[in-house]
Amino acid sequence: MKAKFITLAAAVAFCVASIVCAQDPLPSWNETAPKKAIIDFVERVTKQGSPDFVQLNERIATFDNDGTLWVEQPIYTQVTFAIDQVIALAPQHPEWREVEPFKSILAHDREAMERFSIQDFEKVVAVTHSGMSVPQFQEIVKKWLAEAKHPRFKRPYTECVYQPMIELMQYLRANGFKTYIVTGGGQEFVRAFAERVYGVPPEQVVGSMGKVKYQYDKNGRPELIKLPEVLLIDDKTGKPEGINMVIGRRPQGAFGNSTGDQQMLEYTGAGDGARLMMLVHHDDAKREYAYGADSKIGTFSDALMAEAKKKGWIVISMKDDWKTIFPPSAK
Amino acid sequence: MKAKFITLAAAVAFCVASIVCAQDPLPSWNETAPKKAIIDFVERVTKQGSPDFVQLNERIATFDNDGTLWVEQPIYTQVTFAIDQVIALAPQHPEWREVEPFKSILAHDREAMERFSIQDFEKVVAVTHSGMSVPQFQEIVKKWLAEAKHPRFKRPYTECVYQPMIELMQYLRANGFKTYIVTGGGQEFVRAFAERVYGVPPEQVVGSMGKVKYQYDKNGRPELIKLPEVLLIDDKTGKPEGINMVIGRRPQGAFGNSTGDQQMLEYTGAGDGARLMMLVHHDDAKREYAYGADSKIGTFSDALMAEAKKKGWIVISMKDDWKTIFPPSAK
Repeated sequence: MKAKFITLAAAVAFCVASIVCAQDPLPSWNETAPKKAIIDFVERVTKQGSPDFVQLNERIATFDNDGTLWVEQPIYTQVTFAIDQVIALAPQHPEWREVEPFKSILAHDREAMERFSIQDFEKVVAVTHSGMSVPQFQEIVKKWLAEAKHPRFKRPYTECVYQPMIELMQYLRANGFKTYIVTGGGQEFVRAFAERVYGVPPEQVVGSMGKVKYQYDKNGRPELIKLPEVLLIDDKTGKPEGINMVIGRRPQGAFGNSTGDQQMLEYTGAGDGARLMMLVHHDDAKREYAYGADSKIGTFSDALMAEAKKKGWIVISMKDDWKTIFPPSAK
Repeated sequence: MKAKFITLAAAVAFCVASIVCAQDPLPSWNETAPKKAIIDFVERVTKQGSPDFVQLNERIATFDNDGTLWVEQPIYTQVTFAIDQVIALAPQHPEWREVEPFKSILAHDREAMERFSIQDFEKVVAVTHSGMSVPQFQEIVKKWLAEAKHPRFKRPYTECVYQPMIELMQYLRANGFKTYIVTGGGQEFVRAFAERVYGVPPEQVVGSMGKVKYQYDKNGRPELIKLPEVLLIDDKTGKPEGINMVIGRRPQGAFGNSTGDQQMLEYTGAGDGARLMMLVHHDDAKREYAYGADSKIGTFSDALMAEAKKKGWIVISMKDDWKTIFPPSAK
C-alpha cells in the first residue's frame, strides 16, 4: 500500500514537473524571431557552464514604461492625470481661469494644449506633482487610476498594459532577473501602481525625479514633501545616468520603444557577453496604434530603426509578434 | 532496509534542522538587551499571524556605514583615500605645490588639514572623484583598498569592519530582509567594496551622489563620466531623502551611530508596527575608540542620546554588548 502510494506520488510529481517544464512561458507571443531570441538569451545566461552564464546577482533587466509596458497614445497617461488634476483643483484656484497654461486646460482647448511649451508643462507639474507628501501624492494617483479610463479602450489605464511584456517580465524574474522600470515618467507616479500591476516593487522603479524635502507635520511627525525642483529627467542620456544612480550595474537586457530609450539600449549593449536589446514597434492600428518617426509621442525615428539594424537590436512588431495585446479585463 | 534507511534519513534531517535552529545567529553579541531586542524584533515581524508581521517584499533595513559598519577614526576612510590620491596624482600637477588645499596635503601638514573648509574638501573631491568613468573610479578605489592599511589596526580598511554588525546584516537577510547601506560617504566609493565585504550589492547602496555624464569614448563606446557636481549629500535630512529616491519605502529597521543618522532613525520609527532603531556607541577605547559628543567625526551628541532615550532607540555599547569587534584577519 505504502509502495503503491509512493509510486503514485512520484508519478504525480513527475507529471506536474513535466507540465511546468513544458508550459510555454510566453503564451501571448507568436512563434516568430523575437520570442526565439528571448528564450535563447535566457537559456544562454542561466545555463551553468555556458560561456554567457551570468551570476544570479548580476541579472538585471530594465524596461521603459510608456509605449513599452503600457499604452502612451493618444497622450501620455501622466499628462492626462495632470490635466485632470488641474480641473479637480480649479475650484480652489479661481485665478487659473485667467492664467495660462491653466486657462487653456480649463477651457478643454486641445489645440492650445498641443502647443504647450516645456515651461507650460513645468507649471502644470508644479501645481499637480508637488506641495504634498510622497504618500499623499501616491494616494491621489491611485484614486485617479481607479476611476479614469482610456478614451479608446474604455478600460482603466492599468489594464492598458501589454500582456506579452508582462509575460516577458515574469519569465525573466522566474529565471532570477531583477526587473526594473526605467521611465521618463515620474518615479513616484509609476511607483503608485508598478508593484500591483507589473510586480515591480518601488525600489525597482527608476524615473524622472523631483527633489523631496524632509520636514515635520503639525503633529511633529516626519514627512517627505515633494518640491517642484527636478533632480533627473530620466530620458535619453538620463536613462543610463538614472540606472547608474539607482542600480549601479549595467543591465543584461533592456527594452524600450522610442528614441528616448536609445541610450539605455546602447549602454546595455556595450557590455560583454550576451545582452538582449529590444524595441516595441507600434505597427498595429487595429488592435492598438500605428506610429513611428512622425509621432510626437513615442517617436521611433528612422535613425533609431537604422541603429537597431546595425547593432542587432530586435524590433518587435506588435502586429506580427504578439498574439494578444492586453490582458483580460479585471471586470 | 528501506524503512531503516528512511528512519535514519529522517533522524539525520531532524538533527541538522535542530542544529541549524539552535545555532546562535549573533555569536559576536553578548547576551544583553540589544541582542534580545534584535531577535525579538525579527521574530515579531516574520511570524505569520503576528500583529507585527511584515510582508517579505516590505522587509527593508538600512545601515549607515562610517562608524556603524566600519571604523571611522581617526579620520573617515574616504578622506584618507582622497589624500592618498592627491599625493599619487601630484607628479602630474606640479602647480599643486603652491596652491591650497593641495599644498598642505603634500606637506603632510595635518594641522592645516584639520582646519580645511568645506570648499577645500570640495576641491580635493573634485580632482580625486571626478573626470573618470564610474568603473575606472571603482578600480582606483579597489586598488587603494587592497594596499592601504589602517594606521592603528594595521589591517586593510575592509577588515576594520564590525563583526557583530555583519552578523546582524546576515541574520536580517536570512529572515527575508533586503539590507541597504545609507551612507554620507560616496555612493560609488562604497559600491566598490560593499558586495564583497558586506554582501550588499550596488543597487542597495545609497550614498552621497555626484552627477554622471553619458558620453562616448574615443572608440565610440558609451561611458558614464563622474562630474564634480553634487546631486545629494546623503547625511542628516539627506538620508530619508536618499532612501525615498532609491528605495521608495520606509525601512522597518535602521542602524546608525551619529547625529547624521538621527533623521533616518526618526523616519523609520515614524512608521506603523514593529520598527527597530539602533545606534552604535563608541565607548571602547581599548578595542576600538571612545568618542561621542565632542568628536568632530561621528558626533554622538547629548541631544541624540536624549532623543534615543525618549524614542526607545537602542544604544549599543561596543564595550558591553559586543564580544568581538573585528572579524579574523584574512591573513
